[in-house]
Amino acid sequence: MSTHRTGREVRLAARPQGWPTEETFDVVEVEVADPGPGQVLVRNLFMSVDPYMRGRMNDAKSYLPPFALDAAMEGGAVGEVIESNSPDHKVGDVVLHGLGWREYAVVDGKQARVVDPTAVPSLSVYLGVLGMTGLTAYAGLLDVAEFKAGDTVFVSGAAGAVGNEVGQIAKLKGAKRVIGSAGSAEKVKHLIDDLGFDAAFNYKDGPVAEQLAAAAPEGIDVYFDNVGGEHLEAAIESFNVHGRAAICGMISMYNSTEPSAAPRNLATVIGKRLTLRGMLVGDHARRMPDFIAEVGGWLREGKIKYREDVTDGLESTPEAFIGMLEGRNFGKQLVRVSPDPTLPGQ
Amino acid sequence: MSTHRTGREVRLAARPQGWPTEETFDVVEVEVADPGPGQVLVRNLFMSVDPYMRGRMNDAKSYLPPFALDAAMEGGAVGEVIESNSPDHKVGDVVLHGLGWREYAVVDGKQARVVDPTAVPSLSVYLGVLGMTGLTAYAGLLDVAEFKAGDTVFVSGAAGAVGNEVGQIAKLKGAKRVIGSAGSAEKVKHLIDDLGFDAAFNYKDGPVAEQLAAAAPEGIDVYFDNVGGEHLEAAIESFNVHGRAAICGMISMYNSTEPSAAPRNLATVIGKRLTLRGMLVGDHARRMPDFIAEVGGWLREGKIKYREDVTDGLESTPEAFIGMLEGRNFGKQLVRVSPDPTLPGQ
Repeated sequence: MSTHRTGREVRLAARPQGWPTEETFDVVEVEVADPGPGQVLVRNLFMSVDPYMRGRMNDAKSYLPPFALDAAMEGGAVGEVIESNSPDHKVGDVVLHGLGWREYAVVDGKQARVVDPTAVPSLSVYLGVLGMTGLTAYAGLLDVAEFKAGDTVFVSGAAGAVGNEVGQIAKLKGAKRVIGSAGSAEKVKHLIDDLGFDAAFNYKDGPVAEQLAAAAPEGIDVYFDNVGGEHLEAAIESFNVHGRAAICGMISMYNSTEPSAAPRNLATVIGKRLTLRGMLVGDHARRMPDFIAEVGGWLREGKIKYREDVTDGLESTPEAFIGMLEGRNFGKQLVRVSPDPTLPGQ
Repeated sequence: MSTHRTGREVRLAARPQGWPTEETFDVVEVEVADPGPGQVLVRNLFMSVDPYMRGRMNDAKSYLPPFALDAAMEGGAVGEVIESNSPDHKVGDVVLHGLGWREYAVVDGKQARVVDPTAVPSLSVYLGVLGMTGLTAYAGLLDVAEFKAGDTVFVSGAAGAVGNEVGQIAKLKGAKRVIGSAGSAEKVKHLIDDLGFDAAFNYKDGPVAEQLAAAAPEGIDVYFDNVGGEHLEAAIESFNVHGRAAICGMISMYNSTEPSAAPRNLATVIGKRLTLRGMLVGDHARRMPDFIAEVGGWLREGKIKYREDVTDGLESTPEAFIGMLEGRNFGKQLVRVSPDPTLPGQ
């Protein structure tokens, strides 16, 4: 049984050339459909905005289909089940699913994973430190870059959602030295003072290669790349032999209308026998149990810190997304779509 | 006991800017030293010229020290022991060692590996198909690129010493399809007609990306890179998900005075989860027994073919080296330093 209900959603109004703007999006009020057989109706509480979404705004063949024009965008969200036609869900369940960018979502039961709101300080962590963001950091560092204790690790975008967790996991796993780059003095200070990075620098202060060489006088063994471009070139320069890069993102290039020319020193991969390996977190779902056990434990013990940058209301989503691409956020960028003070863990 | 003896050697007379020329080298007659304790005196029979030597002609930090100015160059050679102060060598032994570019070499016994002249059709194969060249192909394909049966393999520089063996090993190991690129119609014909490549193209005939896409309509899984530049960019474009590149050489860039700008599509490594891995054969010495057993067996059975381009006389070495860099050779480029018709296997 359903009542007539409307809710807002954020649509892709135009494909951006270069940077997205407010005109890229439309916030529209729509009729909320009734859930069909096996489906649940979810009221979204938190949603995530992530760099990879920029790629899906282009009309280009990629690992995920492009977002459709004049339709709601998609992305990770946590919400409360308010109607259920699924045998695995009851009203009141809190679920993690992939239909963010809207206030209400009709989700197939199989795509809605029930999470425990009482096990976490905030439901938002299921979108960040204990969600796909965290799994990206965990699997990227341990499996893709084959980190081992004693390695010196460099992370770009280190104050970002993935980057800060990479650095913290590396420290907890016995890194010799962890170096981060970020885009402001405040973020650099946070990395060193709050998160235990051994060194950090503001990439806007000078050439990345020079700042990295100064921060890593004995070279680096692992590079976790969120940025691409000049950062990757600098990492190749600083790599010790048999260095390994997990290429997770190239945010420096997502809004570029020109193909990137860097790194110009790629021939160095031969002499140093480097490995550069691209990753998508979707390949690493089997590591979720290890990740939840290990990082969830650290989270409960207070050994891993996280920071969130939360804006309020669905209408704030375009600005939150653009700000995240520009690096204006400080911590995992989230939108509180619709708070519910009666639920624990918010 | 030694007799007074002189011999010629090829010295590095000047560090080339860009392409080496005849002026880069000096051929000089020198006094041959007596072998010291533990050393042997070797009369070189064959020597190898290889692309990696170009890198050592620059005064730049690399995985191998630069060649010294006004001193003899170095490189793989096969020769006959004519004096021995080493307990492991006797006069008449044929040895493989690293002091080519000269008619006579004084070699530490530990650096001179005795080989069997009766087990091979020519001693030269110890410098090519059954030597470091072949081990590069074997370990690069199987270990670095993690080839598995059913893969489609693309090899650049496919008519070259390493490239042709990569393609043949891939076929013998169950590749679905093997594609090669080379620099002349004659080489392309040889790859298909003589070596069993499924497809091949002349990279001078048009854009590599277009020719590769046409030759590999279902994409490639492994790329063995001898060339770099445009070829690597094309391979990234044609890769299927989880594709793997062994980066063995970037001959297109060795004589460049500018850093290379390619590949411009490096961000693709993320979406396709590609692995690009540099290699040096020196890391793979432990695979030598497997390689000798397997490829030596194929060689005896006539299942693997090889082609050599041999010039005569030490004085021909500079021209042979430059021609090899320009791709004028057809097959493994060697110099017959000093033939000995009394030895078998020549």
